[in-house]
Amino acid sequence: MNLDEHWFPGHLTELTEAECLEELAAHHVGRVAYCEQDTPVVVPVNYVMDGDAVLLRIAPGSALARRLGPTPASFQLDEFDPFTQSGWSVLLRGSASKVDPADHPAAAGLRPWAEGQRTVHVLLRATQVSGRRLLEA
Amino acid sequence: MNLDEHWFPGHLTELTEAECLEELAAHHVGRVAYCEQDTPVVVPVNYVMDGDAVLLRIAPGSALARRLGPTPASFQLDEFDPFTQSGWSVLLRGSASKVDPADHPAAAGLRPWAEGQRTVHVLLRATQVSGRRLLEA
Repeated sequence: MNLDEHWFPGHLTELTEAECLEELAAHHVGRVAYCEQDTPVVVPVNYVMDGDAVLLRIAPGSALARRLGPTPASFQLDEFDPFTQSGWSVLLRGSASKVDPADHPAAAGLRPWAEGQRTVHVLLRATQVSGRRLLEA
Repeated sequence: MNLDEHWFPGHLTELTEAECLEELAAHHVGRVAYCEQDTPVVVPVNYVMDGDAVLLRIAPGSALARRLGPTPASFQLDEFDPFTQSGWSVLLRGSASKVDPADHPAAAGLRPWAEGQRTVHVLLRATQVSGRRLLEA
């Protein structure tokens, strides 16, 4: 992905993969995305990291749960300050699989923000992690 | 899209289309998403509304600009409070086309947050707008 494709063309710096993983580890809510007939579905969700992969819990009846094959999926995270018009974003692209929480100790720390049956643990493994920072002008 | 597919399964209310459009009109930064070989690319961007459509400016060399046909695309917006674990999200699904800013007066109010050549005006027209609110537990 070249910088040209992205967000804000000025005052942009590219985040290293290590910096992207640091941001992922430092936050708890992001957006999982998958394609439904060529149109992206983008859904906020809380998560924990399991090594360099993103671990989520979703409902068994959800569109994503029905698609787990593994299936191509992305995870996105950003923060921006409307006053300074600065911010950063991270995009992890990879593939999502159903996993057994017993095999993933990090699952113990993953509690959905609200009640309900979210029994399907999904691990999103990265094939590509990229990020950008927009510096204050 | 049924509630089951979505975000937080408890204390969830569905936003009406009018409420979704109000949130879109009240904010200035969201995320445009498109599918690249079945994997979503999700990119933060500032925008203005043009009626019920989202108007953006992107770089001519960007992957999205190369795809404009029109092409299927989505626009996502959310806010959440990690302390109360509450929030809302809006997802507009539709199709993105290159437009002439002269035909869209709203374009006059659209200034990218940073310098650079973002000469391609893109209008994302909705085929479906949905949203959810997670109430504080």
